[in-house]
Order: sequence, then C-alpha cells, then structure tokens
Amino acid sequence: MHFFSDNTAAVHPKVWAAMQAADGPDHGYDGDALSQRLDAAFSEAFGQPATALWVATGTAANCLALAAMVPPWGGVVCHREAHIEVDECGAPGFFTHGAKLILAEGEAAKLTPATITAALAPIRGDVHQVQPHAVSITQATEYGRVYTPGEVTAIGDLARARDLWLHMDGARFANAVAHLGCHPGAITAAAGVDALSFGMVKNGGMGAEAIVLFGEARDPALTGTIQRMRKRAGHLQSKGRYLAAQILALLEDDLWLANARAANAAAAELAAAAGERLIHPVESDEVFLVLSPDEAAALRKAGFDFYDWVAPAGAPGAARLVTAWNSNPAHVTALARAIAAL
Amino acid sequence: MHFFSDNTAAVHPKVWAAMQAADGPDHGYDGDALSQRLDAAFSEAFGQPATALWVATGTAANCLALAAMVPPWGGVVCHREAHIEVDECGAPGFFTHGAKLILAEGEAAKLTPATITAALAPIRGDVHQVQPHAVSITQATEYGRVYTPGEVTAIGDLARARDLWLHMDGARFANAVAHLGCHPGAITAAAGVDALSFGMVKNGGMGAEAIVLFGEARDPALTGTIQRMRKRAGHLQSKGRYLAAQILALLEDDLWLANARAANAAAAELAAAAGERLIHPVESDEVFLVLSPDEAAALRKAGFDFYDWVAPAGAPGAARLVTAWNSNPAHVTALARAIAAL
Amino acid sequence: MHFFSDNTAAVHPKVWAAMQAADGPDHGYDGDALSQRLDAAFSEAFGQPATALWVATGTAANCLALAAMVPPWGGVVCHREAHIEVDECGAPGFFTHGAKLILAEGEAAKLTPATITAALAPIRGDVHQVQPHAVSITQATEYGRVYTPGEVTAIGDLARARDLWLHMDGARFANAVAHLGCHPGAITAAAGVDALSFGMVKNGGMGAEAIVLFGEARDPALTGTIQRMRKRAGHLQSKGRYLAAQILALLEDDLWLANARAANAAAAELAAAAGERLIHPVESDEVFLVLSPDEAAALRKAGFDFYDWVAPAGAPGAARLVTAWNSNPAHVTALARAIAAL
Amino acid sequence: MHFFSDNTAAVHPKVWAAMQAADGPDHGYDGDALSQRLDAAFSEAFGQPATALWVATGTAANCLALAAMVPPWGGVVCHREAHIEVDECGAPGFFTHGAKLILAEGEAAKLTPATITAALAPIRGDVHQVQPHAVSITQATEYGRVYTPGEVTAIGDLARARDLWLHMDGARFANAVAHLGCHPGAITAAAGVDALSFGMVKNGGMGAEAIVLFGEARDPALTGTIQRMRKRAGHLQSKGRYLAAQILALLEDDLWLANARAANAAAAELAAAAGERLIHPVESDEVFLVLSPDEAAALRKAGFDFYDWVAPAGAPGAARLVTAWNSNPAHVTALARAIAAL
Repeated sequence: MHFFSDNTAAVHPKVWAAMQAADGPDHGYDGDALSQRLDAAFSEAFGQPATALWVATGTAANCLALAAMVPPWGGVVCHREAHIEVDECGAPGFFTHGAKLILAEGEAAKLTPATITAALAPIRGDVHQVQPHAVSITQATEYGRVYTPGEVTAIGDLARARDLWLHMDGARFANAVAHLGCHPGAITAAAGVDALSFGMVKNGGMGAEAIVLFGEARDPALTGTIQRMRKRAGHLQSKGRYLAAQILALLEDDLWLANARAANAAAAELAAAAGERLIHPVESDEVFLVLSPDEAAALRKAGFDFYDWVAPAGAPGAARLVTAWNSNPAHVTALARAIAAL
Repeated sequence: MHFFSDNTAAVHPKVWAAMQAADGPDHGYDGDALSQRLDAAFSEAFGQPATALWVATGTAANCLALAAMVPPWGGVVCHREAHIEVDECGAPGFFTHGAKLILAEGEAAKLTPATITAALAPIRGDVHQVQPHAVSITQATEYGRVYTPGEVTAIGDLARARDLWLHMDGARFANAVAHLGCHPGAITAAAGVDALSFGMVKNGGMGAEAIVLFGEARDPALTGTIQRMRKRAGHLQSKGRYLAAQILALLEDDLWLANARAANAAAAELAAAAGERLIHPVESDEVFLVLSPDEAAALRKAGFDFYDWVAPAGAPGAARLVTAWNSNPAHVTALARAIAAL
Repeated sequence: MHFFSDNTAAVHPKVWAAMQAADGPDHGYDGDALSQRLDAAFSEAFGQPATALWVATGTAANCLALAAMVPPWGGVVCHREAHIEVDECGAPGFFTHGAKLILAEGEAAKLTPATITAALAPIRGDVHQVQPHAVSITQATEYGRVYTPGEVTAIGDLARARDLWLHMDGARFANAVAHLGCHPGAITAAAGVDALSFGMVKNGGMGAEAIVLFGEARDPALTGTIQRMRKRAGHLQSKGRYLAAQILALLEDDLWLANARAANAAAAELAAAAGERLIHPVESDEVFLVLSPDEAAALRKAGFDFYDWVAPAGAPGAARLVTAWNSNPAHVTALARAIAAL
Repeated sequence: MHFFSDNTAAVHPKVWAAMQAADGPDHGYDGDALSQRLDAAFSEAFGQPATALWVATGTAANCLALAAMVPPWGGVVCHREAHIEVDECGAPGFFTHGAKLILAEGEAAKLTPATITAALAPIRGDVHQVQPHAVSITQATEYGRVYTPGEVTAIGDLARARDLWLHMDGARFANAVAHLGCHPGAITAAAGVDALSFGMVKNGGMGAEAIVLFGEARDPALTGTIQRMRKRAGHLQSKGRYLAAQILALLEDDLWLANARAANAAAAELAAAAGERLIHPVESDEVFLVLSPDEAAALRKAGFDFYDWVAPAGAPGAARLVTAWNSNPAHVTALARAIAAL
C-alpha cells in the first residue's frame, strides 16, 4: 500500500484513451492538431488569453519559464525549501546559465510580501550584486500548503511594483484549486502570475506538463523564446501529440479537478486520523505527521509504504504520506485506522 | 498517404501493451523494476557490458552523451550536415556549455578517417584553439547511408589513436542494422563506439530513446555524470517506467529489427521504382530522389505527402520520402507505381 | 629583430606617462574620473554618440559585445578564418552560453553581402535551426585586408535589412583607418556598426581595449547589459583608471593614428621589398609572403624572427611578418633588404 | 583622506619599475621570461611545488579555480557573506556554468568544520540534489578576520575526508600572513589548500593577481584546465609579461609582506583609537566600527572618506575604514585622533 508519492501513480484511463486516439498520423513536434488546441484550451480554462506549451517534466517547465524571464546575470527570489532550490540538481542554474536563486523565508515554504521584501532589501543596485528579475512560488507548497487568491495577488502586486516576473511552480496546482474551490484564474492570471508550470504528471498524466503563459503582455517574445529554448534543451518531442493528448484529456470536463479532489479527500481522511500528530494543516494531498521510529516500523509492518521525513525539533520522528488521484479507498481507510490506533 | 517522416508514426501495439502493463505502482524516476533491467537488456543485445539510460528525445540522448565526454572548452568532430549541427537549434552548445562542433566533410554525410583527419590537421595544440575531444557519427546518416562495421571500426581506431571519444547518433540505428544484417555490437562496442543514441521514437516507440554506454572502461564516471546531467536538464521523468517499458518492448524478440526491416522494405520498393531518379543509394528508410516541381505537384495531387528537398546541382527539384515501421503497403505500392509512371 | 606580432610590442611612453599620472587616489572600478571621460572621448573621436567600456583583451571585448547582442540559442555570422572562430579557444561559446558561429566565405577573410547572404540562405526560420542575430567582421582582417567605408556600409545595410546586429573586431582598427585615411566614424557608426572592439594593445597600449557602442539606439539596455556581463566575467578591474588612462592617452592628439601609421609604413617598406612574393596586398601592419624553408632559415640566421605561415597551394612555404608602432626603422630596412636579396 | 578601500590604492614604485623594465620585446601571452618564472617563484615562496597563473582580477582568479574544480552540476560550500556569493555579480555561476554556492554560517564570515558539516548534512547523495565538490574560504575574511594555521588545517582535513577541494580567496592573503607572522605555506599547501587566489591588487599591484595551485597532486590536469579556461574567458593577456612583472616585484624581498604590514599597522592605529566601538577584532587592514550618523558626518566634515556599513543590532550606525600599503601616516593619525575624540 503505496503512500510514497503521487508522482508515480498510474495513468488515468481517460488519459490512456486520449493518447491512443492520437495514434493516427499527424504533423510532428507541436504542429499536430492537438498541440495546436492548447492555447485555446488553457485560455478558456483560465479565463484569460494564454499560451501553453507541453514538456515532459515539471523541472523542464519551471526552468524553461525562468530562463525566459531571467538573464544569466539575474536572480530569482524563491523559498529556501523550494523544489527548484532543493530538488532539481541545479536545473535552474543550467537552464538560466548561472542565474542565482535568492533565498527567502516563510512558514511552511510559503513566501509572503514581507519575506520577499526582506530578501530583496540588502541587494544594492550596482553591478557587483545579482539583481532580482523574478519571484517563484509553489502552489501548493512543498509542505502541501496553499496560497489563497489574496495571498498570490499580494505577491503579484509586489512583483509588478518591483518590475519582477512572477512564476508559479504548480506541480500540485490542481490540488490547490480543488482545496480553494476558486477559479484557476483567480490564483494565476488575475493575481499577477506570468507563467505557471501546470502539473499533470502527479494528477493522472504520464509524462506531460504544461507551461502556461499569461505574460505575453509584458513581453511578446516570451512564448517564442521558450519555444526555442525547449527545442535546444531536447524537450521538443517529435510525437508531441501524445503529450497534448494527455493534457487535453485532463482538462476535459475538469478531470484534473476531479482527480485532485479525490487525492485531497484521501489526504483529508488521513489528516483526520492523524489529529494532533499533524505538522502542517493538510490542504492538498500531502500529510506530514509526527511518527516515532517504532510507530513507523509498525505501520510498515502492516504493509504501508511511505517516506520518513525530517522531524520538527523535539519530535521523535516524522513521516510524509502522499495520496493520489487513484489512492485505493480501502488502503486509505486502513492507514487512517492504523494511524488512529497508534 | 504520409511520407513525411518516420518520427511521427504511430506507436507499435506491443509498445502500447507494455506501457499499459507498467501502470501498476512502482518506484519513481529510474528506480522502478523496468528501468533497472535496461543495463542487462542492452548488455545482452549488444554482447558487451553496457549501461543504458532512457531519455525522451534523440537530441537529449546525443547531447547528454556529448556533454559527458567533452568539456566546455573542447570540440566534437562531426559532419557539416550532421543533425547535431543542423537541426538541434544549438542543443550541443547548450548541453556542453559552448563546446564547438568541428565540421568535417564526407559524401552523403558520412565521415571517413581521411575527412576526420583533414578536419583535425589544422588544429594547433595551444590554448588559443579548441581541442577535439570526440567524434560523432550518424548511423544511418542524414541521407540514409549506412556505415559498415569496417567503416565504423576504422573511425573507432582513429578515435582511440587520437584519444577521442566516439559517439554514434543512432536515430535510425535499427534501420542500419537491418540493412547490414550484422550484429548490433559489430558497429558499436566492438568497433570502438563509446556512446550510442539508440533511436526508438522513429521505430515504433512513443517518447523514449536509450543512451547506451560502452565507454565505462575509459571513464568509470561516465554513466554517473550523465545521470546527474539528465536530472539537471529536466529529463529524469518521474514515471520513467513508461519509457523503460517502451524500450524493453522494442528490444524483446527483436521487435526493433522487425520494425526497421518493414520500414526498409517499404523504402526499397520506392527506390526500385525511382531508379535513375535516386540521389543516394537507399540503405534505410529514406528515399531522396530527383523530382521536378510539376512531378511533385502531381504526386501530391494524387494524395501523397512528403517534403521537398534541396536538389543537386542541375536537377530540376528533389524530394525526400520516408517510410516507417507501419507504412501502409498499399500506399507504398501506390506511390511506387506513381513514381514509376512519372 | 622581432617581427612576430604587434601584440607584444612595448608600451608607448605617453601611455606610460598617462598611467603613472593616474596613480593618485580615485574611485574604484569605472567610477574614477578617467573612466567617466570615455563616453565623451569616443563620441568626439567618432562623431557619433557612443558609450565606451574598457576591458583588458580583445577577446573579452569581442565576446562581451556579442553576448549582449546574441541570445544563447542564436548565431553570429563570421568568416571561417575570423579570430573569434579560430583563435579564441571557443570564447564566444563561453560568453554567449553556446551561441553558434555561422561560418561564411570571402577572399582574404573579408565578408561581403554576397557571402553573408549565402551563409544565411539555407537557414530555415523554424525552431530546429539556429537563427542569426549578428554579423561580425574584422577590420583589418586576419590577413591585414581593409574594408572600405562602402564595403562596411553595404554590410551594415544588409544587417539592418535582416535585423542583425553588426559587430566589428577592431584589433587592428587603427591600422585600417590609417590605411584608408578616412574618418573613423565612416567605417563604424555611419556605416551601421553597432559595436566596435577598438584595439589598443597592438598599438601602443598595455592591457586595455575599448568596447565602443553605437547601438544604444537599437537597444537602450545594451551598455548596461555589458556592464553587468563585464563584472560577471571578472573583467571589471578595481583600478580601472589605469586602463582608462591608456585609452585616453592613445586617443589624445590621435596618437593611435600616428602609431598605426608608423606600423603601416614599416609594413609597406617590407611589402615593397617582397614584390611578387606577396600573398595579400599589404593594407595594415601584416605582410604575408611566399618564403621557402631555405629562405626562411636564411632570414632567421640573419637575426630576423617571425612566424611561418600556411603556404598557398603550389608555394614552397610562407611566412607572416608583423610590424608595430615601434618597429625599429633600421631593423625594418635590414629585413626589407634581406628579402629583396633572396 | 581616503579610507574607502585598498583596492584603489596607488601602484608601488617597485612595481612600476618592474613593469617598465618588462618593456623590451618578448614572447606573447605567458610565453615570456617573466611569466615562465612564476611557478618557481611561488614554489619557493610557499615551500611547496606550486604552479601559478596571472589574471587581472580576484574575481577571475577565484572563479577560474572553482570552475576547474567543480562541475556545472556540483556545488561549493562558502560563507553566506563570502565575496563570491555577495559581490561578484554571480561570476561563479558564469565560470562554473551554473554550479551552486552552498551557503554556510560562521562568525565574522569565518567557516569552521562544524558550520561546513552543518551545511553538508542535509544533502542527500541522490541525483536530485547538488553535490558538494569544494569548500571556499576567504583569508582574511570579508570582515578582516584571519584563519590560523590550525583553523585552515582543520578545514583542510575535513575537505580531504569528504573528498572536497579546498579553495582560498586570498584577496587580503598578505594581510593575513602579516598578522599571523607565519610562513605562507602554513596556511595553504601544508594546511590542505589546493588553490589560492593570491591577491596583489589591494597590496601595491595594478591589475595582476596569481592563481597559485598546490592541487596538481590531486589532479594533474588542473593547471592545464585553468590555462584553457583562462584563454576562453578572455583573461589571457597578450602582454602578460606586465602582469608577471607586477607579481614578481611584489614577491621579491617579500615586498608583499612589507606592504601588508604597513597597511595592518595603520589599521591597528585606528583600531586602538576605536576601542569599544570595534565590531570585529582588527586582524588585517579593515576596521569595522560603530559610528552614529552624526559622528560619521563629523568625520566626513573633517575630510575623511569611508563607506557606511550595516550596523549590528542596537547600534546607531556603523562604518568601514580600510587602510592600504600607502596610507598616509599623518592621515591615519589624524583619523585615529578624530575617532578617539568623538
């Protein structure tokens, strides 16, 4: 009973079906009919003119967007626990040719205007210091916490005022929208987000994420630049129609939201069982809880697989449980009971 | 009736089946059972100890291998019409951080020891000039021509003597082996090839190619270096098992060779019809032929789609026809007849 | 008796004096009074609004300008024998993060609109091919040949029409102006040059060249970008006033032209002696001549030092003789006589 | 009366003399007789086999060494206030092609084995995280504090144990040695330092620093790699003999130590006057002291120029005073008295 990560869950049957329906001949790269539909599909879904490009991974989505926004001698403000800082093997440095991640603070990996401002404050404008060009936030954060529309908007306003681009790593964007119950545009385009890495792989897809760009108004060259960078990075797949098919299938009838709601509900069931053990409020599909080594061993002996986590000060141990769109309800309930019974 | 490119052909049913069979839960990235089988599968297929890594595209496969072999201040000898020089939007420059492609000559995009030597000859060893670190050849070449085992071996010997790595872009490697009827090891490991981009996408796969490394003996860090570079380039997919599944399905029972033979046979049928029109002998799945604008228009009017090509001096025009593992025999025969009837 | 290269000649006494006069305290980097005078000095010398930045080497000057003009996924058209292609150890690839040099032909390392157009012609505009962003020409060329105002203007017009930046490597710019007898602006700003590497090191300086920018009209960020890149490349010296002093000393009273005229005159004396041996007309301070190994040995035995060169087809051998601002007239005359006597 | 920075001080007369003595013709780049003497000169000065290369700036020295030691996907542990992190405009990211600076803590910008270990502890060895390849320390630190031989040795031992290179940014290395009164080898080669940026510009030079390498034993390619990187970065000056002359002049008769002692003595005089105002013990040529805005204004009105500094918590204000090899004793005494009288 797997609670390792949503990033290895199975592919949704409707995604499989869409991919197989794409088998017929079509043009290569993103010249096929499906890829050509992405801009319209995302513009409709987000209620704003958008352009959208598929890539295989969230790392590529994040880094291509950042590289188009930030020159090699510039910087990106992000949380010190952001995925781009901690878990992408320096990919931002590779794609941006050495731009700097300017690390900021914030509870549960959430930035705020205050913590961003604090990170920017000591930077002199002279040529000796790296100047900020963008802010990157993660929705939901690395601890499964969600930015509200108001919180994103406040960061968006700050970014505009400081002439910074705003990027959103949305590996679990669907979970955040499902949690908030808001329109996806309310935490992106309308809130000042210029580029969104719209995660699909953790949410029923196989190997396709979307770079969704609202920032053309600020730089009409943005999409074109990313298209060239994508090719140059080996991310322009010749059979791109299979990636577009995945994305369109998840957008259709809001399957992406249904999947996220299912994952969130499973996490909520575990959270309810964890009670006082919770390290963070559960707002998406991740549950961080205090768990002693003995307790962890007991759960594993009972057949539950999950990752240990760094425990907060004073705690005997901790674990991370991740659900997914297809978490087996029986497994979830069994784990919830086992946790409650510890 | 599509004769544009093999790189958009449908996915083979056995590949689909293998991908779907991989749906069950497993570890992420390349920690799954299928990815873990790749080294053994390629070692067996090539008759030599090999390590193998999946990536989504041939560009990524080529460039990750080259970047692991060539320092930023070094160079790679390749043909001036090589895909890495002409059609990857500078991807080698991106992955290698600016290494130089040292352009060499050769008929039909084939390098020879003589043309490689001619390219190397003027390079002084001082710090003012970029020093060569690798040779890259394409099998089959950009014109569908095939290096024999003897030809690769001669280049491999030269590379060893000059302390250069030897890389093979094998986007149509299967077609070359099918044409030669040789053991795949005879034109790779046994011939001095250190790294092979083993193409799958043009041959029944969806979005998976293999970097096959025989060069560990020369540098035990080679595979580990590429693993880190792959992650850093956003090419380490979390559901890597679906890529491994594609590759293993094509290796099983030599499906990759069966597919390539089918494509080659279709091309041979077209070649026979083209007769004197042929610009290059047809040794894989590509047919380059003299075709006047009027003739091209007539074929298109009859329902055949294909790319125009740069005509040889004196010719009124030219075209490229590409078959695939699933070329419709009726379409092929119809095109052959239409060409013969011109 | 040294005829190796002008790039090792002594520092002019007036340059020494100016450097020593700069010894007093002043602000660091380019905040000192001398550095602050550069824009005005070059604007006056070239008759056009210009900004100017010092750097230590021509390689840095060339590559910083190109890197500010060309994105990593772009290309620069240059002659296949250009210094940036042949003798800078891939520095353009380093500074531009992997942009491509697109090689063009031309007699004596001179580009023409026709050869540039020929190099551009096969480039498709799609994302698979590197797109040109700039043209770089060398004045005087690597063979000491000089572009006339009309020739530069024709290239400048082409560059404008194709939306390309025009860069001039002016390592021997002074020699070219001295040869042409024209206003320096006539072969730069007025002819469409956006950025000039104004060489000083070969012409009486010690370790200072100027990047002279006329291109602010096309991109107001150009100078600022180079300033950041210069710092980031370790080329912003803290005692920059000593570099500015060199440059201002050479500009003052046209010392740069006087020095170049002296070098050119010495080369002309050698050229006159060489007569039929000349491989290229002598238009600056370089003399390329046919010289058999025996003849070269004889000259060396007589005390003359110089580099062998690649001989034209059919010639028994060749040599390059380079004069300098301080070539000893007696040595020059002696060498001229020795050549004439061969 | 300038107390801004030692990095703009005048050139020492013996350095001027040595440069002018180098005016005679010689080979270009580092082929001249002076450059060829550097290895021997440093081997003798440090009591260990060393290779040494000149460059114009400390940024270039630091970054070339780091780039030769750390792959693009690797990391360098440094203090969060290190010059390479804070004041080089991202130069390490440029030279290393995006390697990461892994920030560690420590009082007064000094690393310790404990703070380095703390920075390394959370790094997992998998491909998702940047792996450390080097440690970089600054001697004296950005706050003028000095590592003792024992402190460097402890870090060197840790570096060896963790298979990390040890780099020392020695912009004020001379001041540190003068303060310690130790042999220069005792805090470098003998303590485990592989590469030292030996600062000259702040200590009587004009535009020459030395990269001194003791690490050839760990990687015989180290020097050769840096030589190529230096050329590629535009830092191989053709008249390198003038840089070598500066360095040799400062090494001769330990002029570098005499200069540093003079600067340190001036700082000590100011420190004695500052008394309780001192923020850091004064161990080199930098004095950080508490100074209210009114006090700063008073000193400036009296003719003293210096930089404000970030005040420690609770302090009304702060300033940084920097002396130099040629600080005017009368000015120093005047400033000391003015401070004492505040």
